[in-house]
Amino acid sequence: MAATQLYNFNAGPAVLPQPVLERAQAELLDLPGAGLSVMEISHRSANFDAVIAKARNGIRKLYNLTDDFEVLFLQGGASLQFEMAPLNLLHQGDKAQYLVTGSWGQKAFSAARSVQQWNGAEVDLAFSDESAGFMRVPNIDEYKIDSAARYVHFTSNETIHGVQWQAEPETGKVLLVADVSSDMLSREIDVSKYGMIYGGAQKNLGPSGVTVVIIRRDFLYPKDNLPKMLDYHTHVSKESLFNTPNTFGIYIISLVCDWLEEQGGLQGIAKLNSAKAKLLYDAIDASGGFYYGHAQRESRSVMNVPFRLKDGELEKQFIAEATNAGFVGIKGHRDVGGLRASIYNALPREAVEALVDFMTEFEKRHG
Amino acid sequence: MAATQLYNFNAGPAVLPQPVLERAQAELLDLPGAGLSVMEISHRSANFDAVIAKARNGIRKLYNLTDDFEVLFLQGGASLQFEMAPLNLLHQGDKAQYLVTGSWGQKAFSAARSVQQWNGAEVDLAFSDESAGFMRVPNIDEYKIDSAARYVHFTSNETIHGVQWQAEPETGKVLLVADVSSDMLSREIDVSKYGMIYGGAQKNLGPSGVTVVIIRRDFLYPKDNLPKMLDYHTHVSKESLFNTPNTFGIYIISLVCDWLEEQGGLQGIAKLNSAKAKLLYDAIDASGGFYYGHAQRESRSVMNVPFRLKDGELEKQFIAEATNAGFVGIKGHRDVGGLRASIYNALPREAVEALVDFMTEFEKRHG
Repeated sequence: MAATQLYNFNAGPAVLPQPVLERAQAELLDLPGAGLSVMEISHRSANFDAVIAKARNGIRKLYNLTDDFEVLFLQGGASLQFEMAPLNLLHQGDKAQYLVTGSWGQKAFSAARSVQQWNGAEVDLAFSDESAGFMRVPNIDEYKIDSAARYVHFTSNETIHGVQWQAEPETGKVLLVADVSSDMLSREIDVSKYGMIYGGAQKNLGPSGVTVVIIRRDFLYPKDNLPKMLDYHTHVSKESLFNTPNTFGIYIISLVCDWLEEQGGLQGIAKLNSAKAKLLYDAIDASGGFYYGHAQRESRSVMNVPFRLKDGELEKQFIAEATNAGFVGIKGHRDVGGLRASIYNALPREAVEALVDFMTEFEKRHG
Repeated sequence: MAATQLYNFNAGPAVLPQPVLERAQAELLDLPGAGLSVMEISHRSANFDAVIAKARNGIRKLYNLTDDFEVLFLQGGASLQFEMAPLNLLHQGDKAQYLVTGSWGQKAFSAARSVQQWNGAEVDLAFSDESAGFMRVPNIDEYKIDSAARYVHFTSNETIHGVQWQAEPETGKVLLVADVSSDMLSREIDVSKYGMIYGGAQKNLGPSGVTVVIIRRDFLYPKDNLPKMLDYHTHVSKESLFNTPNTFGIYIISLVCDWLEEQGGLQGIAKLNSAKAKLLYDAIDASGGFYYGHAQRESRSVMNVPFRLKDGELEKQFIAEATNAGFVGIKGHRDVGGLRASIYNALPREAVEALVDFMTEFEKRHG
């Protein structure tokens, strides 16, 4: 690399806290108490029991989960949950409603539709602004919740479109099922509104290959005729150890939970996240249109900031110069184009400051 | 730990090559060329392209795979493949035959039976010695292959019972589907006999959380109505990048493949493995019955050596003393009892020598 200092704006897998990486490195051949690498010990050993309990309890404590909730560490990413959730949670004649505010919500909705032949359920699209290019979350009068629905699904933060729900959708007594892959553990939430919360770990929690599924026990149906590995009961009853989980990934999550506590828990990290996002959005807004964000103001994401340059021709040059200056992962997703800065929990404020400085300087030269 | 030197006989997750762990440690914060941790880079970046290509090509080269085969890196362990294989490979009216020589084969068979309601296929038990306690592979006259079968499934090595096929079952033109979780890349195989070869990585290849699936393209059926994440076509067409794979696990596999080449490839490692196993079995056989193996001689596994003490009362003491002397994971699985030494690729010969010395000394004191 030409740049000596790198700033990691990757959308996922993404930046991890430096102290977590340093500890993982120090312990890589010798997990304290085990004398072996965490990768070399049995998932049924006392040493790993301690690791998974730490990760599980870390998430429980950060989200302030009540005893009704189980925390599972599965595999297959959110993509497998797009299928498992409707397969497990919907029976013949049940109905689920989907609020779609970006590509990931669209995938979740399509997956739920695709398994209808298996569960005989109704899957409704309660809102989508796909035709407008996914720029915002809906107002409350733009979607109608069926009080008989089994759940309402939403994507709390859309990684590609940078559209984030600032608060949960209003669904009355209908429980929420949420894909929180890209803003998990980034802010406090009211867990009593949720039947299930899930996400891939690779943005805010750890390496890829672990899916965190938080599920309310009384929201699960009695055991259905599903293949065992797809059935949440299998994993609930065995506390994520029905088969070998991603032990190394769970270990990293346990360290990230510690680090989050050191940041002041979710209240603390949320403040830091908001401040980082404000820095960047303020710079965009102050540019007088030289830069402009993709999402509408009131739906802006604190985690992913997709933005464009008024002069589209300059975008390639921006990417080239930014990359050369040490900004990694700054190129926008092809669905939106332009630039994207992913500013997850672990991204230091200094990285955002450096990006804002770079943007200001770039604008001076080309504005 | 009391012992200064540990010998890792864990059944899985299991011992990894020391040079692989050391390199992973050295590079943990700075993957060469990336300047970031391998956990922090996009699975769609050029840096990760190189990592996954190295792992894929490493396996291709070691197994001498022809171009007909795809190598996939999936998630969910062999347990998910127990369900995915019959869901993908069997249609209504198709038949598969299962040769069951241990607990894992039994699980694979039960899983195939459990998904019959979805694929309408016939799943036959062509052999099982469960009633005898899983001590051997069958002779050729003990199972009858239906030449119209779509595939014959077998478990090349049974981790719990220490029963290993010394050569493939004879199935004529019927292709094999094999769970090789616990002897993957431990010896050469004739890949032309296989339609699919699969296994969890956590015994011989890397950390847990990656499943290697090697599948012959022309053995796949035209796309069926499966949920997308369960459909091999999804992962074949996207070269394991339909969604985010376990990037760190794939990275470790890429390093393990390098290490295997340094051991002389599969021919080289197989020689080392056989020599290690011989040491241990010779010690058992020389004990005049003080120790005895679980599996019958001609079915003995080169990877997992479950054994008992004639005096069952002494087994607890053996485990306690062995553990105290630095032998990790030596306790047998509850289904077989007694002791088990898992002696995978990465276990140094010195560890087996130390165990044999300990066994001899223990026998002297108690024999």
